[in-house]
Amino acid sequence: MDVDPCTLLITCPDRPGLVASVAQFLADRGANILHADQHIDHEKNLFLQRIQFLIDTAGVARVAREFDEVALRFEMEWSLQTPRSKVRVAILTSRESHCLADLLSRWAIDEMRNSELVLVASNHPDHGFLADHYGIPFHHVPVDPEDRSSHPKRIREICDEEEIDLVVLARYMQIIPESMVIDYQNQIINIHHSFLPAFAGAKPYHQAHTRGVKLVGATAHYVTTELDEGPIIVQDVMRVSHRDGIRELRQKGRDLEKVVLARAVRLHLESRVLPYGNRTAVFD
Amino acid sequence: MDVDPCTLLITCPDRPGLVASVAQFLADRGANILHADQHIDHEKNLFLQRIQFLIDTAGVARVAREFDEVALRFEMEWSLQTPRSKVRVAILTSRESHCLADLLSRWAIDEMRNSELVLVASNHPDHGFLADHYGIPFHHVPVDPEDRSSHPKRIREICDEEEIDLVVLARYMQIIPESMVIDYQNQIINIHHSFLPAFAGAKPYHQAHTRGVKLVGATAHYVTTELDEGPIIVQDVMRVSHRDGIRELRQKGRDLEKVVLARAVRLHLESRVLPYGNRTAVFD
Amino acid sequence: MDVDPCTLLITCPDRPGLVASVAQFLADRGANILHADQHIDHEKNLFLQRIQFLIDTAGVARVAREFDEVALRFEMEWSLQTPRSKVRVAILTSRESHCLADLLSRWAIDEMRNSELVLVASNHPDHGFLADHYGIPFHHVPVDPEDRSSHPKRIREICDEEEIDLVVLARYMQIIPESMVIDYQNQIINIHHSFLPAFAGAKPYHQAHTRGVKLVGATAHYVTTELDEGPIIVQDVMRVSHRDGIRELRQKGRDLEKVVLARAVRLHLESRVLPYGNRTAVFD
Amino acid sequence: MDVDPCTLLITCPDRPGLVASVAQFLADRGANILHADQHIDHEKNLFLQRIQFLIDTAGVARVAREFDEVALRFEMEWSLQTPRSKVRVAILTSRESHCLADLLSRWAIDEMRNSELVLVASNHPDHGFLADHYGIPFHHVPVDPEDRSSHPKRIREICDEEEIDLVVLARYMQIIPESMVIDYQNQIINIHHSFLPAFAGAKPYHQAHTRGVKLVGATAHYVTTELDEGPIIVQDVMRVSHRDGIRELRQKGRDLEKVVLARAVRLHLESRVLPYGNRTAVFD
Repeated sequence: MDVDPCTLLITCPDRPGLVASVAQFLADRGANILHADQHIDHEKNLFLQRIQFLIDTAGVARVAREFDEVALRFEMEWSLQTPRSKVRVAILTSRESHCLADLLSRWAIDEMRNSELVLVASNHPDHGFLADHYGIPFHHVPVDPEDRSSHPKRIREICDEEEIDLVVLARYMQIIPESMVIDYQNQIINIHHSFLPAFAGAKPYHQAHTRGVKLVGATAHYVTTELDEGPIIVQDVMRVSHRDGIRELRQKGRDLEKVVLARAVRLHLESRVLPYGNRTAVFD
Repeated sequence: MDVDPCTLLITCPDRPGLVASVAQFLADRGANILHADQHIDHEKNLFLQRIQFLIDTAGVARVAREFDEVALRFEMEWSLQTPRSKVRVAILTSRESHCLADLLSRWAIDEMRNSELVLVASNHPDHGFLADHYGIPFHHVPVDPEDRSSHPKRIREICDEEEIDLVVLARYMQIIPESMVIDYQNQIINIHHSFLPAFAGAKPYHQAHTRGVKLVGATAHYVTTELDEGPIIVQDVMRVSHRDGIRELRQKGRDLEKVVLARAVRLHLESRVLPYGNRTAVFD
Repeated sequence: MDVDPCTLLITCPDRPGLVASVAQFLADRGANILHADQHIDHEKNLFLQRIQFLIDTAGVARVAREFDEVALRFEMEWSLQTPRSKVRVAILTSRESHCLADLLSRWAIDEMRNSELVLVASNHPDHGFLADHYGIPFHHVPVDPEDRSSHPKRIREICDEEEIDLVVLARYMQIIPESMVIDYQNQIINIHHSFLPAFAGAKPYHQAHTRGVKLVGATAHYVTTELDEGPIIVQDVMRVSHRDGIRELRQKGRDLEKVVLARAVRLHLESRVLPYGNRTAVFD
Repeated sequence: MDVDPCTLLITCPDRPGLVASVAQFLADRGANILHADQHIDHEKNLFLQRIQFLIDTAGVARVAREFDEVALRFEMEWSLQTPRSKVRVAILTSRESHCLADLLSRWAIDEMRNSELVLVASNHPDHGFLADHYGIPFHHVPVDPEDRSSHPKRIREICDEEEIDLVVLARYMQIIPESMVIDYQNQIINIHHSFLPAFAGAKPYHQAHTRGVKLVGATAHYVTTELDEGPIIVQDVMRVSHRDGIRELRQKGRDLEKVVLARAVRLHLESRVLPYGNRTAVFD
């Protein structure tokens, strides 16, 4: 079949009969379930599910319209991703370009499905040419040292105007104001260049070097109001040794950062990440 | 809840309504579904599912008795693992003891749930003391150079008599006769000390050394009548370098072999492996 | 100290006194040895060494001029990399751009030390814009179906004219003629999208999918006249599962290919790779 | 050649001529250098070297007797490991047996070269049978709740009496007194079940679970007077997911702990670890 499948994400209190009710609801509307992953957090009595199914266009509309029947009964929070609904993405960046260049090249070869890369914004002008090359609008939003609030305000306006669904922080070195973090809950993904919670805060490669660790890591997470404390989506590490100075740690780290960030964005775009509390279920 | 959950494994031609029918069947008998993983092989139009659920004792009996209703309708092959049904395991081994020692220590600390380690058999007498230490019956079945068929015959008898459900080849260097491979289909797990299909056959570490690879691997797979061609369950690799001679490759390989074999056995015991064709779906 | 260090690579028959003689030679000329890695292949009685040292400009000249004294005595093959000698690199590519885009972005942030990226050549015109963006000359050398020998001939001419020291095949889908392979021995690096020797030849992801492996790999190697049999420089793998179709394998594979190729190129540029026979010592 | 090689470890202030002087000293006494690894810590102006060489018995004696000539000139700290000098090892353990069982099986198959496993001691009686099985003397040293100092005192006495060179803490849950830590500097190896510095202190798997990390780790390090802060020798990680509860994290962690601890012990026994400051150079 040529159509992309629909994906339903569900969170609700755990209760017997849930799985059957959802499956029956979909079957009655002609859906063919491809994948159904679920997770139960027993401590929180929470049920999390991701269902991917094939269905015709009329069926999609009925599911979207009628699923509240089921949802109300089980007190569900739910969202439906359809082949037509494209996630609108903005990339924010600063001076370092490796994550940006990597992400742009992935959109260029159509690796980031279900999405449209709408814009790149930065407090530095340098990467405008790269965005141009890939045909993505670039916004240079300088930081005004006289009025530090103007930069985040303008960034927020741009994201609102462009109806951005996902903000990707690709080594963006400015702070997102609390109000934006709250309004874009679980819609802002950051890459931190350490294996969190080790080496949270600034200069993680310096910290790692001082401590003499044998692995360096990278962590992609949703941004919350607590710095470096948001729900983790993807982590990975790379082997290092006493021979690696700060320069080499940074170099190895860059390879890690771009892969980890891209993987997290892809998982999000494929509706594979369900945050709950300060954690995530990742259905990969 | 204190009881271990039941697990249902299903294979059948893919058809709409499958998921809902199974879920409804279980819900009607009071089951609470914990996990439901499924996979569809589009080329073969095959539906594979693993469902884990909690249910009271009466419910278990009803599911076991009545599931054929659903199964017949959808032409399903299925199996049910209940908290009471223990998988009966035999370990076969030869001279090298690292996999055997590792497996025994895992059963000793109760890591291998849903199972009973019934016996260890070997063509060498050396590891009898180790099995004794852990209180597992040990069968020394020597190979008679005059009558090479007597060893495999006796092994087969022992497994049959003890109603073995799973045979683990822990660096067992004898060939399992075709008839036993067929009768114990997907019930014999072997560890091959290479990343198959690279270096199939004998002396894989020598082959790897000669070729100058930078990683060595290990592969746990079900045994089929084609040598080293059975469905792969788990694979892993380890970094090596030009400094590693055969001795070092073997040493690193041993660490890999025992972990990969144990992981495969554990996945099998938790009903997480569904073989289909020459491949496996591993629901982990 | 601000100067980059010099690196000496040595291969010769193993003999006592080698290490001392070289160290003394360098000390007498004012060198301060930073790293000295060596490897002895006992089967071939071969001694391989990489020495990195700091020395003033006059000292560099003396070493370059006088090292043959030592070299002749021990029948050494040797090469000296100095801060001034930049490796001249050409990238050849075809339709797929992920490796090319990744390499270009690394040169742009000055990650590829000791080298100059001189040109990009391709049988397809598509990636000219990308090379332009980074300011690297691009040669479109189409394949003439009437005269298949004209493309490789022109590629060879370009490399010769530009005095290329290292040719990087970044998913280049044409065959390098045997004569060029021989003249550029250990100077052409290719990326193969499998864990060689598994799945050599064409369509490795299809082969991997059919075999049902649980890991996919990538291998960077020097090109020899035997297809996919050249000395391996770097290998790495990534976990896959039954859920990954060809499309997903390709996608995961791309992430691997670009990292593995870049790592191999970097190791070569830092004079860390010493090929011997069909293998390599990698001093990292 | 059948003899095991000698290994010389050197630490001293960095100075030109060092490498040549040592190499010449060894060559003059008939040594054939197999490997020579070195590292320079520029911040501390520290030179670290590991040299492995073959030499006849008379030569060994001369090196041991005469090396102070060189050492004094360069203010070196040095140690020489010869084929005859066996490292005497004690394992301390408590209730959990997985690391102990793994280490015992490694000594049994002669994987731990250059060493003699002299004793196992524990505050619990349970693992005496296992030590017995492998023929290793077992000391049960209970903790007296009335006199908490008696246990560590007795442990210290045993290690002193047996002239132990290396103490391996295989999930040993008692604290080593500061005086013993100081006297056995860089001679006590501990395994911590997290990727330090993340989750230092107690119950790391609970901490990891709460934080929702996607990898768990293990760290082998020398014991210092600062808890969990000693020089790191080996670290490794394993992938986990939201599906892993505390029990599964522990289970995966055990696989990691035993491999990481064994690798660290092996590196130490092969004189591959050179601690400096709070870090290590690991020449592997």
